[in-house]
Amino acid sequence: MIGSTFGTLFRLTSFGESHGPGIGGVVDGCPAGLELCEADIQKELDLRRPGSAGPAGTARKEADIARLLSGVYEGKSTGTPIAFFIANEDQRSADYSELARLFRPGHADFAYQAKYGLRDPRGGGRSSGRETAARVAGGAIAQRLLASQGVSVHACTLEIGGIACECDNIVTAGSRPYFAGDERIIPAWDERLKKVRALGDSLGGIVQIEAYGVPAGLGEPVFGKLDAMLAAALMSVGAVKGVEQGAGFKAARMLGSEHNDALLPGGRFASNNAGGVLGGISSGQDIILRAAVKPIPSIAREQKTVDAEGNPAPITVGGRHDICAIPRIVPALKAMVALVLADMLLQQRRQENT
Amino acid sequence: MIGSTFGTLFRLTSFGESHGPGIGGVVDGCPAGLELCEADIQKELDLRRPGSAGPAGTARKEADIARLLSGVYEGKSTGTPIAFFIANEDQRSADYSELARLFRPGHADFAYQAKYGLRDPRGGGRSSGRETAARVAGGAIAQRLLASQGVSVHACTLEIGGIACECDNIVTAGSRPYFAGDERIIPAWDERLKKVRALGDSLGGIVQIEAYGVPAGLGEPVFGKLDAMLAAALMSVGAVKGVEQGAGFKAARMLGSEHNDALLPGGRFASNNAGGVLGGISSGQDIILRAAVKPIPSIAREQKTVDAEGNPAPITVGGRHDICAIPRIVPALKAMVALVLADMLLQQRRQENT
Amino acid sequence: MIGSTFGTLFRLTSFGESHGPGIGGVVDGCPAGLELCEADIQKELDLRRPGSAGPAGTARKEADIARLLSGVYEGKSTGTPIAFFIANEDQRSADYSELARLFRPGHADFAYQAKYGLRDPRGGGRSSGRETAARVAGGAIAQRLLASQGVSVHACTLEIGGIACECDNIVTAGSRPYFAGDERIIPAWDERLKKVRALGDSLGGIVQIEAYGVPAGLGEPVFGKLDAMLAAALMSVGAVKGVEQGAGFKAARMLGSEHNDALLPGGRFASNNAGGVLGGISSGQDIILRAAVKPIPSIAREQKTVDAEGNPAPITVGGRHDICAIPRIVPALKAMVALVLADMLLQQRRQENT
Amino acid sequence: MIGSTFGTLFRLTSFGESHGPGIGGVVDGCPAGLELCEADIQKELDLRRPGSAGPAGTARKEADIARLLSGVYEGKSTGTPIAFFIANEDQRSADYSELARLFRPGHADFAYQAKYGLRDPRGGGRSSGRETAARVAGGAIAQRLLASQGVSVHACTLEIGGIACECDNIVTAGSRPYFAGDERIIPAWDERLKKVRALGDSLGGIVQIEAYGVPAGLGEPVFGKLDAMLAAALMSVGAVKGVEQGAGFKAARMLGSEHNDALLPGGRFASNNAGGVLGGISSGQDIILRAAVKPIPSIAREQKTVDAEGNPAPITVGGRHDICAIPRIVPALKAMVALVLADMLLQQRRQENT
Repeated sequence: MIGSTFGTLFRLTSFGESHGPGIGGVVDGCPAGLELCEADIQKELDLRRPGSAGPAGTARKEADIARLLSGVYEGKSTGTPIAFFIANEDQRSADYSELARLFRPGHADFAYQAKYGLRDPRGGGRSSGRETAARVAGGAIAQRLLASQGVSVHACTLEIGGIACECDNIVTAGSRPYFAGDERIIPAWDERLKKVRALGDSLGGIVQIEAYGVPAGLGEPVFGKLDAMLAAALMSVGAVKGVEQGAGFKAARMLGSEHNDALLPGGRFASNNAGGVLGGISSGQDIILRAAVKPIPSIAREQKTVDAEGNPAPITVGGRHDICAIPRIVPALKAMVALVLADMLLQQRRQENT
Repeated sequence: MIGSTFGTLFRLTSFGESHGPGIGGVVDGCPAGLELCEADIQKELDLRRPGSAGPAGTARKEADIARLLSGVYEGKSTGTPIAFFIANEDQRSADYSELARLFRPGHADFAYQAKYGLRDPRGGGRSSGRETAARVAGGAIAQRLLASQGVSVHACTLEIGGIACECDNIVTAGSRPYFAGDERIIPAWDERLKKVRALGDSLGGIVQIEAYGVPAGLGEPVFGKLDAMLAAALMSVGAVKGVEQGAGFKAARMLGSEHNDALLPGGRFASNNAGGVLGGISSGQDIILRAAVKPIPSIAREQKTVDAEGNPAPITVGGRHDICAIPRIVPALKAMVALVLADMLLQQRRQENT
Repeated sequence: MIGSTFGTLFRLTSFGESHGPGIGGVVDGCPAGLELCEADIQKELDLRRPGSAGPAGTARKEADIARLLSGVYEGKSTGTPIAFFIANEDQRSADYSELARLFRPGHADFAYQAKYGLRDPRGGGRSSGRETAARVAGGAIAQRLLASQGVSVHACTLEIGGIACECDNIVTAGSRPYFAGDERIIPAWDERLKKVRALGDSLGGIVQIEAYGVPAGLGEPVFGKLDAMLAAALMSVGAVKGVEQGAGFKAARMLGSEHNDALLPGGRFASNNAGGVLGGISSGQDIILRAAVKPIPSIAREQKTVDAEGNPAPITVGGRHDICAIPRIVPALKAMVALVLADMLLQQRRQENT
Repeated sequence: MIGSTFGTLFRLTSFGESHGPGIGGVVDGCPAGLELCEADIQKELDLRRPGSAGPAGTARKEADIARLLSGVYEGKSTGTPIAFFIANEDQRSADYSELARLFRPGHADFAYQAKYGLRDPRGGGRSSGRETAARVAGGAIAQRLLASQGVSVHACTLEIGGIACECDNIVTAGSRPYFAGDERIIPAWDERLKKVRALGDSLGGIVQIEAYGVPAGLGEPVFGKLDAMLAAALMSVGAVKGVEQGAGFKAARMLGSEHNDALLPGGRFASNNAGGVLGGISSGQDIILRAAVKPIPSIAREQKTVDAEGNPAPITVGGRHDICAIPRIVPALKAMVALVLADMLLQQRRQENT
């Protein structure tokens, strides 16, 4: 995991900025013979489309049409790099022009300037949430591979703006507004988001991701632990500030006798505090992860900042922004988990037939 | 990050089992000319020594003497691989022999068996906490490199068994029992640990890690974000079930206007909810991380499990075990953060002089 | 170097097939602030254009226009991935359709089928020489970075069809037909190629690549030796069957006293049998490499082969093919050397300021 | 391939200097369940022992006893890192002390100094031929894995000091003096080496390496071609200045109709000019490689060089040196080929069951 490439055997390299020609990626290492078409990618991309976000969303319209550029022949992967491209359509750089000299609080502007000595100020450039389109497209390919092996990845929203719910059915949640864990919470979230939008402010939340059908044995010992890779994958999505697995932070307050999952005959367990990973290796139980998402840093309220010369300057971030990264971040988190699992699944095949 | 190698330019490869000849590692990519001796490594290793753990600890005695095998000449690194080895001394495999056929709940036994088709049952083999000795030794080398650049890494314990404290001074905490964030909490932890030990049970806790002096600009865009690498680093330590950065999970409940850290003249910020990372790149603020540590899975109380044939069998894990991974895990977490920062520091040098 | 990604810090990921939508690539890890525009890439691409190859060339016309998709803002690299795309224009798959069931001798067909269980038969798919367009484009970016550091890469042809010349001036050779090392050899090559074309056969040759201005100290000890990386880089170009450095195979027949390059004051050497690399690390002398290029496997003469079911079948490879990979392979070899040097240059910066 | 780690799934990390505590390595990624013991490693190490080299060899005595430090339990690999260590025994640094201020021609001294700003002058430190002991030990483990899959690697010497032979039987050659390709050449080599030793000079030669039983389908498209990895592997061994595959440099002078290997029924070919690799992927034919080895740079004859301050100084390299890297380099070249094949074999398993 360096720069813009993720994975060892199943690898996604992403590229593109929010206000350049487009966003794209290259999936290398996907086995040949996998049935794959543009619609498989489009289906996932549509889940993160602006406008689908309801009260949390932006007024921007991006069709986000993915085009396959290579690696698929007659509906099947050929084993060679699968490249895709999503042209940017709705670019109003003018919205951002006056912000080029100011560092937006909570954004990457200051850190990018320090790192590179220059930056593309149009819409956050590479640090824009739009970058997740490449993750979602790459993750769609990973999910096709996983599906062929009986593995599926699901995600739901557990909390927005401090209003929490339990998840009753994470598969069903995939087609609910906000990907809500519980349908009954939706009106409360609607109301909270409307109020906060009126204040010119923004909200964060918590997302749960689960993977079903993961065979026991995935993950590498020590540094390449499955949960370490999953944590990196989720934390690499902008706005994520915390990751936990299974019982997570609650595990810190449990007794060993409460936390340990008793083993039962048939490779089953009496509970799943481990979240499907023991010693960094999948146990055959469901993988369970949660990610904490910070509030969107672009807010209409005036904030304190400095300009490029270090002089104090007030800033009000205009533009057409989401006020909560949820639900649009949910498909990206799901995609990242799929990328890790696809890679680990292929890595584990080394163990076969020895 | 694959298998037992961590890092891109500054890399640690670890090896060894708890009951084989010893534990060791190879640090490759350390620049030449760094002053380094065995005492630099020993100092950190001594912090994780059994016996130093007080009421949380085991009765085992391991001197854990690190010997440098290569890469240092006349007190300086030569730029070539720095190998070290820590011979195992106190090995009583007999303690484990009758457990070889049973899968210990909460341990890696079941997952290792599923992955490899066989396993070294002596003391958990590679999944033993003893493996962290190599991390601590490698991290000591990373910390020498960081020190030469004005960067330091510190850690303290915030919580054991649900009894929490604030951290008053993380540097001072480094020489307190439990590396306690606040000295006044120590008697309460002593008492809690004694009680739980009497019950044959175990406890978890929460550790905070901070890095001072980290220059702005470290970390890679998108997948190689500094916080993603740090999350992987911490999560790769056995027993860690959750990681958060800056405001962490609390960020999910804050308004954007609360969470955003206002920029001030001089590269300063009015707060540090970001934990020193913006858009995956260090901002020049202190790096702040927390890790949730699960209770030690080896407990004296009888538990349900199955044997290698899948038949139900009760298990009582004897041996001489810690009952809380804290404080011995603290130097390992500090080491992992140091390894990431050393790597990122070297990676960022590519940007120089262009 | 795995699959379609090359390099550690300065990385090229390539994608695309000869008869799909196009050929492209992503350069990740290029430092920010490098002046770069599409013309820099186009200039190198034009050197490998069909038609520029004279009697060695094909009748196909490919404009090969590279378009930048990301990573450049206001004429400078931003430090983020630089993606480019070269749309395919002249695709006549029909030429290849009847060959889909036969394995062309000397081509990758049989091996691809064995590896993947299927293959894209149109023009060799991924194993087409057209894939080198992405290398040339990526190498053009590497050459811009090298130029900013005073390093240049040059190449010339030393031999075609067994007719050899010496190189009088490798810089001047860059604008000669065939990139000929000596202008006077050109008529002999013209004649030889015409004769062989008339026979329906093909030719190979030898290319020399040199790099000027490479500072001493590039390359990694042991496995990451500069010459090892260069050998991999050249050998990764289809049709290259041998690589040598400095005195190369002749070194095997020299005495130590002949081969050793005596050191002179001022960091100079009395000779350059080493080809600029000592112990895997650049010495400050010119880097000198040679690559052996096999004859183009597509020939008009009838050959023996088998079909997909393993039955014997005669084959005559039609289509519009080059009859010698030289001169079109020359820019690709130059590009590969540039990619290695750019990566090693950035890697060596880790050593600075320690 | 960076620094001292080689491979992607099957990885060798090497460490150690000629005059430190010893030479060692870590093989990570070897599948579990492989039968392995110290004798498997010792057998290969014994082939490169000084003294076994006859007239080409040094008077030094190194027992070179490899000890396994981890990763093997009850005679089988556990899937975790396999570390080994070979203690240095016969270290007379005094031999080298007066050479510390001079740069030996043909050695890495000057380049190491330029790279690192300092160097370990004892016996060449990390650039000593002794470093190949770790390659041979790691390669022995790779050969065990390959053997379990029906793959074997063989090597023989084709040429020493310009006196060439053909290889009549590469398997038998493995137990001949010099690993000679033809037994009848041995007296001529004996005589040549004795004469050159008397002159205080040294010789090079050419080695052939072949692999039998390699299944079709190994190798990655484009950059990770099997022959590219093999070229890097061989070129990474000190003293190798050229590498060719199959027909190699001769291919540059052949017609396409001569060079193409006609396909026959049953996955066979009429010839093997390709050396077992088509388009970077193994074809199922024998893998054939040759490496050019330069003369040993340490010679007793006086040479011109400069000291650390750049002043001219004559140098006579004493010590107890081989005068030809052959035959001791032969096991190292074989080991490197085995490491590549083991890695590629595991990588190709990703394609299974999709």
